[in-house]
Amino acid sequence: MRRVFIAGAGATPIGEHWERSLRDLMAEAALRAIQDSGLDKKSIEAVYIGNMSSGSLQGQEHLGALLATWIGIPGVAAAKVEAACASGGAAFHQAFLAVASGLYDRVLVVGVEKMTDAVTADVTSALIMADDQEYVAFTGASFVGLNALVYRAYMSEFGAKQEDIALFAVHDHKYAVNNELAQFRREITLDDVLKSPLVADPIRLLECAPIGDGAAALVLCSEEAVKSSRRNDTLVEVAASTVATDVLSLHDRETLTTLRATVKAAERAYRMAKIEPEDVDVLEVHDAFTILGVIHVEDLGFAKKGEGWRLLKEGELEIGGKIPTNTLGGLKARGHPVGATGVYQIYDVVKQLWGEAGANQVEGAEIGLAQNVGGVGGTVVVTILRRVR
Amino acid sequence: MRRVFIAGAGATPIGEHWERSLRDLMAEAALRAIQDSGLDKKSIEAVYIGNMSSGSLQGQEHLGALLATWIGIPGVAAAKVEAACASGGAAFHQAFLAVASGLYDRVLVVGVEKMTDAVTADVTSALIMADDQEYVAFTGASFVGLNALVYRAYMSEFGAKQEDIALFAVHDHKYAVNNELAQFRREITLDDVLKSPLVADPIRLLECAPIGDGAAALVLCSEEAVKSSRRNDTLVEVAASTVATDVLSLHDRETLTTLRATVKAAERAYRMAKIEPEDVDVLEVHDAFTILGVIHVEDLGFAKKGEGWRLLKEGELEIGGKIPTNTLGGLKARGHPVGATGVYQIYDVVKQLWGEAGANQVEGAEIGLAQNVGGVGGTVVVTILRRVR
Repeated sequence: MRRVFIAGAGATPIGEHWERSLRDLMAEAALRAIQDSGLDKKSIEAVYIGNMSSGSLQGQEHLGALLATWIGIPGVAAAKVEAACASGGAAFHQAFLAVASGLYDRVLVVGVEKMTDAVTADVTSALIMADDQEYVAFTGASFVGLNALVYRAYMSEFGAKQEDIALFAVHDHKYAVNNELAQFRREITLDDVLKSPLVADPIRLLECAPIGDGAAALVLCSEEAVKSSRRNDTLVEVAASTVATDVLSLHDRETLTTLRATVKAAERAYRMAKIEPEDVDVLEVHDAFTILGVIHVEDLGFAKKGEGWRLLKEGELEIGGKIPTNTLGGLKARGHPVGATGVYQIYDVVKQLWGEAGANQVEGAEIGLAQNVGGVGGTVVVTILRRVR
Repeated sequence: MRRVFIAGAGATPIGEHWERSLRDLMAEAALRAIQDSGLDKKSIEAVYIGNMSSGSLQGQEHLGALLATWIGIPGVAAAKVEAACASGGAAFHQAFLAVASGLYDRVLVVGVEKMTDAVTADVTSALIMADDQEYVAFTGASFVGLNALVYRAYMSEFGAKQEDIALFAVHDHKYAVNNELAQFRREITLDDVLKSPLVADPIRLLECAPIGDGAAALVLCSEEAVKSSRRNDTLVEVAASTVATDVLSLHDRETLTTLRATVKAAERAYRMAKIEPEDVDVLEVHDAFTILGVIHVEDLGFAKKGEGWRLLKEGELEIGGKIPTNTLGGLKARGHPVGATGVYQIYDVVKQLWGEAGANQVEGAEIGLAQNVGGVGGTVVVTILRRVR
C-alpha cells in the first residue's frame, strides 16, 4: 500500500443555511480545500462525496457528477458513498484506498448534508432510514428513541447518573466557543442541559446533536503528489483508515452498552497504525447523544467499560487532560450535518495536527483519532492521523 | 497496484419480484456469489453495495450494514456507492480499488435495485434525481424526455432513421431468450417496436429498458486469495476499471450525440489494460434507450461517430459479427434495475469469459468490456476483463 497524506482542508460554517443549497455548500468546501492545498484544481483525479440523505431531502442523487460540474472539473472519477451518519468517514476511507491503491494521486473527499429546507421527506423520517425500515422504523421508533434505550441500559448497568453523562454536552459547548465554524458558539451549564425539554426519556434536548447544514472537504495525496502542495511543510499522514459493521439493529445485539463495530474498527486501526490508545494526543468521538460520547471513549480503549463518565467528570477529556476530546465542539456544538460529520471530524483533527486549532490548540499534538458512527453503531469508521514533520 | 481477480458470481432473475424485498434480493445474489466462489463467507472482509434509490423508494439507507447483518457477516467493512444508474459500476470500481490497494483480499460487490413496490416516491421521480433537480427535474423533464432530445439530435446530425436505431431493441430481445435471468425472454420484431406506444417523441415504449427488480454480485480477490477459490482454474482478471464524469446536464454540453464521459473512461481503460478496441471479444453497453446503444458503440471506439447504427444494421453486433454486443440481452431485455445494472453487465461478461454463457456463448472469448452509464452520461464506468487461463 502506498502512503497517503492530507494536502488540504476546507469547510463551511455549520448552521441553518437557508440562503445556500446543497450544491453551494459542497462546492464551497471543495474549493476551499483545493485552494488550501495550493494544487491546481484541474489536477484532481477523483472525487468522493459523503452524504446520507440528498435523495430523500433534496430529491437529488448523482452528487459526484453534480459537484464535478459545479466546481469546473468534469472528467474526474466520482461517486457518492453512503453509510448513514458514517457516510463522511466511509467516503474518506474510499478516498484513502483510491490513493493507497496507486491508481490516483490527488483525490478530493467532501462530506455534505443539508438538513434544513427539505422538500420530499422530513428529517426524522430520513434519519431513521439508518436503521431497519421494516423491523424498526416501521414500528414508529425514532433515532433518539433508540438511543434512549442505550442510555437507560448504561445507567442501569454501571450505576452512572444522568448528570454524569449529560456533562458531555457542557464539555462540547465549552470548546465550540472558539471554533468559528461551530453551530453553537456559547457555553451551557449542566443545569441548562438537565432542565431542557425531554425528547425521549431520559434524553434531554441539549443532550442531542443539532440538525444543521454544512460541508467539509479534504484533499488526499500520494507521497509524490503532496510534495507540490502547500501542506508539505507540516505533513500529516493517514496512519490508519478502517471500517467495521455490526448487526444493524439494537434488538439483535448481545449488549446495548458496547458498540462492537467501534471495538473492531479500533482494533484494526491501532494495528494498522502500530500504536496504542495511550499514543493518541487528540480524539474526536461521534457524540450524536451524550451517552454515545461516554460509550465511545470506552469502546476506543481510553477507559474501562462503564467508566467513561468518570474520565469526563474528572476533566480527563479536556485539553490538558489524559485525552483531549472533541476539542473544537464535537457533534453537539460544532454540529452534525450527518453525511458531512465524518469529514468535519477529520478536518478538526488535521487542524490540531497542523497546529491551526487556535485558542483550543493541543500543544505538540502528533497523533489524532476520529471515530464516525452510522446508525446506532451499524457502521463505524476509525481514522488515525499522524504528523510526520 | 495489486492484480485483482473475479472469484465468484451470482445473481437473481430480473423481474417484478412482488414477493421479495430489497434485502431478500441482495442477500440472494450475495450468497450465490460467495457460494459460487467456494470461499467461506466469513473470509469476506469488505462489502460494497451499488444502489441508486433505496432511500427514495424503500425508505432504507445504510444498505452495507443491512446486508452484512442479513447474510451473517457483521464485522466486515461496508458502504453503499451511488452514481445514479452507474451505481453498480461505481461500486465495482471501489471493490477493485479495495483489493488493488492491498488492504483487503476478499471483497464482495452487490448491485441491487427494487423498483416495483415503491413506498415513498414514484419511480419516474426517483430516476430524474440522476439529473439536476434544480435546473432540469424542476422543469418537469423526465429521463426518457431528455433521451428523446439526444435521439432527435442524432437522427438530424447523421441522417439515421428511427428504424435503424430501434433495431437495438430487437437485437437485445433475441439474445435474452436464452438467458434464464432475463426479464423478457421473447423475441420482438422491428414492427413491434415501431408500433409500440410513443413515450417521448420519438422514443417508443419498446425502445426503453424496463423497470424491474434484481440483484447481482461478484467476489473480487487478490492473486493470493483467488487461489483457494473455485474459479482459479478459469481465471478472469480485472484488466481495467475506470470512471469518468461529464457536466451533469445536456444543456451544458457542446454536443448531444457524444458522451464525453464514455470517451474519457474508455481511453483510460484501454490504456490501463494495454489493449485497443479491436482486441475486445465481447461487449456490454448501457442501452437504457435504443439510441444510447448506438451512441455507446461509437464512443467506445467500435464505429466512427454517426455510424454505430450501420454496425447494428449489418449484423456486426451479433455473435459471429465484428463485436458481439449485449449477448445476454442488455438493458432492454435482460433488464435494468438501475443500481444493479453495472454489476449485471460485468456478471454477463464474466459468464462469457468463463465459457458459461450457454447457447449464447462467444467461442474463445478472452477479453470483455462493460460500459455503465449514470444519468445522461454524467458518470460512465468502463470495466475490462481478461481471461488469463
